[in-house]
Amino acid sequence: MSQTPDSAVRTYIERHRAAFLDDLAEWLRIPSVSAQPDHAPDVRRSADWLAAKLEETGFPTVEVWQTPGAPAVFAEWPSGDPQAPTVLVYGHHDVQPAAREDGWDSDPFEPVVRGNRLYARGAADDKGQVFFHTLGVRAHLAATGRTAPAVNLKLLIEGEEESSSPNFRALVEEHTQRLAADAVIVSDTGMWSEDTPTVCTGMRGLAECEIRLYGPDQDIHSGSFGGAVPNPAAAAARLVAALHDEHARVTVPGFYDGVVELTARERELFAELPFDEESWLRTAKSHAAHGEAGHSTLERIWARPTAEVNGIGGGYQGPGSKTIVPSSAFVKLSFRLVAGQDPDQVEKAVRVWAEERVPAGIRHEITFSPATRPCLTPLDHPALRSVVRAMGRAFEGTVRFTREGGSGPAADLQEVLDAPVLFLGISVPSDGWHAPNEKVELDLLLKGVETTAYLWGDLAETWRHAP
Amino acid sequence: MSQTPDSAVRTYIERHRAAFLDDLAEWLRIPSVSAQPDHAPDVRRSADWLAAKLEETGFPTVEVWQTPGAPAVFAEWPSGDPQAPTVLVYGHHDVQPAAREDGWDSDPFEPVVRGNRLYARGAADDKGQVFFHTLGVRAHLAATGRTAPAVNLKLLIEGEEESSSPNFRALVEEHTQRLAADAVIVSDTGMWSEDTPTVCTGMRGLAECEIRLYGPDQDIHSGSFGGAVPNPAAAAARLVAALHDEHARVTVPGFYDGVVELTARERELFAELPFDEESWLRTAKSHAAHGEAGHSTLERIWARPTAEVNGIGGGYQGPGSKTIVPSSAFVKLSFRLVAGQDPDQVEKAVRVWAEERVPAGIRHEITFSPATRPCLTPLDHPALRSVVRAMGRAFEGTVRFTREGGSGPAADLQEVLDAPVLFLGISVPSDGWHAPNEKVELDLLLKGVETTAYLWGDLAETWRHAP
Repeated sequence: MSQTPDSAVRTYIERHRAAFLDDLAEWLRIPSVSAQPDHAPDVRRSADWLAAKLEETGFPTVEVWQTPGAPAVFAEWPSGDPQAPTVLVYGHHDVQPAAREDGWDSDPFEPVVRGNRLYARGAADDKGQVFFHTLGVRAHLAATGRTAPAVNLKLLIEGEEESSSPNFRALVEEHTQRLAADAVIVSDTGMWSEDTPTVCTGMRGLAECEIRLYGPDQDIHSGSFGGAVPNPAAAAARLVAALHDEHARVTVPGFYDGVVELTARERELFAELPFDEESWLRTAKSHAAHGEAGHSTLERIWARPTAEVNGIGGGYQGPGSKTIVPSSAFVKLSFRLVAGQDPDQVEKAVRVWAEERVPAGIRHEITFSPATRPCLTPLDHPALRSVVRAMGRAFEGTVRFTREGGSGPAADLQEVLDAPVLFLGISVPSDGWHAPNEKVELDLLLKGVETTAYLWGDLAETWRHAP
Repeated sequence: MSQTPDSAVRTYIERHRAAFLDDLAEWLRIPSVSAQPDHAPDVRRSADWLAAKLEETGFPTVEVWQTPGAPAVFAEWPSGDPQAPTVLVYGHHDVQPAAREDGWDSDPFEPVVRGNRLYARGAADDKGQVFFHTLGVRAHLAATGRTAPAVNLKLLIEGEEESSSPNFRALVEEHTQRLAADAVIVSDTGMWSEDTPTVCTGMRGLAECEIRLYGPDQDIHSGSFGGAVPNPAAAAARLVAALHDEHARVTVPGFYDGVVELTARERELFAELPFDEESWLRTAKSHAAHGEAGHSTLERIWARPTAEVNGIGGGYQGPGSKTIVPSSAFVKLSFRLVAGQDPDQVEKAVRVWAEERVPAGIRHEITFSPATRPCLTPLDHPALRSVVRAMGRAFEGTVRFTREGGSGPAADLQEVLDAPVLFLGISVPSDGWHAPNEKVELDLLLKGVETTAYLWGDLAETWRHAP
């Protein structure tokens, strides 16, 4: 009796499930914490372990790419079909720090299955989500009888994502030719919930700066001089206060230039998500919603640019009081950017805006960190439709759309490789990224496997008919 | 050949000058640093030394008053004349910390005379200015042939002024009867310059508070949540920014209620002082003048109330950036108060003002420290006219008027004893209070002696004719 392709995939996955989980557990035992120098050998071991596993999976080319920091793993499996599109999968093999005493119920580097969940540091972020691609491509081959994937499949799994990817962009620029792809699949995000499978369609960008303000050459007595000279802490406060108008819109002239506004359809789709503001506030550990007028909370965090003060300081910081006019103050600002905004233009606009607002007698310095660009894939992009179809088959339900409010190295791939970025993540908010007792839902992990088993065929087919 | 009273005083002072300076040097050798616990025995030794010296001077009553902190010295010398007014002299015998390696050219506790200056910690602030009263009263007696001063003379020399006088008010309240006086003479301030003898006519008061603002229960990710919840650091900044209007006037409703405005005559007198804004800015180590519109710099620091931010903090304080919405922030504010303002009313007004400005979702706490009241003696007060006359005789020139922008325990004396406070200080701005190489100008120190030698007779006479 012949199987449908879907049942063939499921049968294959079921048969290999135990070995797959054993392998993943072995990888999770390697404490590849990129932020802690004494774990550098573990991060290297993690890269070597993954490289060996990808060879075993069947990738004809597997390389460990060194960087000035931790190594990345690159793998390539050509389709053999000259018409086939090329897909680059992105993930990372390093993990956040974790220690039993942080509140873990078991050793963070000794994976345990409790119920239908696998607990370990990296289970969801991001080893689990990288690893589903190994069984996924095998299931794709097994169900289709192919000996190579329907797409030219490339993987780039970096080792410094949890340390802000300091060497990632240079690595991508160095290997632009080998990484060239028609689409990038990022497996380092999540979905709405167990019951609501979603595809993320974009991430916000990020521009960060610190503004330092200098007044008197040293702290001076506020009795002798206060009220008669400019105060840099007050100047810092006035800058921050001037950032937003009464509608909580950013006042920096030119800040909204080019912003790709949400379409009516996108707003409808956001509104269809089962969003509960009270429970969201609990997750945000916050006590009120507040943001740009005329936009819902989801629109504010996913699709609207923001200006946030991340830190402010100046003058006396100890207990009690000290009657000084402080000599200096600082503010640390971050601007989340959405599609259409250019970080360089935002930097220029903020510099001009600040320059005009610093009072006479106060000197200022603005330092911008390297920016991250926003990325956004239109809802009707053919590759996105493929991801939605593949996920819909795996989850046997409607796939909805989210975006990600944060920012990530995906934008570097989009920009350097000039390829659309698609997000295929199966993690859920309760997975505890960066927190104690990180876990992955095993059913969802296998849905990830299944999705990729369908995705490569769908993508190859879609590409053939793409305009 | 008979002497004028003035030449008799001068002759007396000249004859006792060397012994006076030797005695002062002996006192200055005691490192009575109240802020440093290991100097507590020295502060006690300083009190005992002064008590012995006051007995030697002739005060029939001399007592060391213990406090929970450092001891004060009280002395009393009744006039014998039932009509005589009672004067209380205030000063302090503790000093600021000092160490050779802070930049002193000689040991701060080994007084040296270079040229016409005596260098030592406490030379001007405040041992020198306390000590001129000892030779002053002797010169007064010698020149007038009296055996007791023309006024009932009391001294209260505290031991914790450089540590914010934590026990001073309680001490004054405990001894209100014994300290009762018709006027208080504070010798712990200064004059305009060597060439411009001045009398200070008031000090500003001080109300200080810390406002703490609480947003999310912990720092939260600004990518995931930023732009959709209220940010306590932004709320802190907006509070500070809202403190002043575009004329640099304080916006807190009711803040200016009761303020005693400068008279045209007082503004004229301020304007007559040889004030050079450029050199004042150098002293202020500041790069522009800035303050309440419609007022000169001297008016702003001496006679106008202010609101100053002494410290602000919240969120990430380290190098680089951290993409968080901070969980909390604080601002430390100080309000300088002028005559007519009531610290309790100011506190209430600030509380209401802040309450109305803290946004939904942000919890706030305001803590006020104990306030210091302003004090001001009218230019035509008879006791002030006495001080001006006595000083004019000593300095043989016109005495002008200043005020003090800072705040001090004098206000407690004014309030508890219900007596006018007069300031008799002979220090000059170059004396280096709280700085390395503190010194006192010996000529000025002896003018202080001479001033008090005239003052007690003048005051007694004035009082007889006072309304």
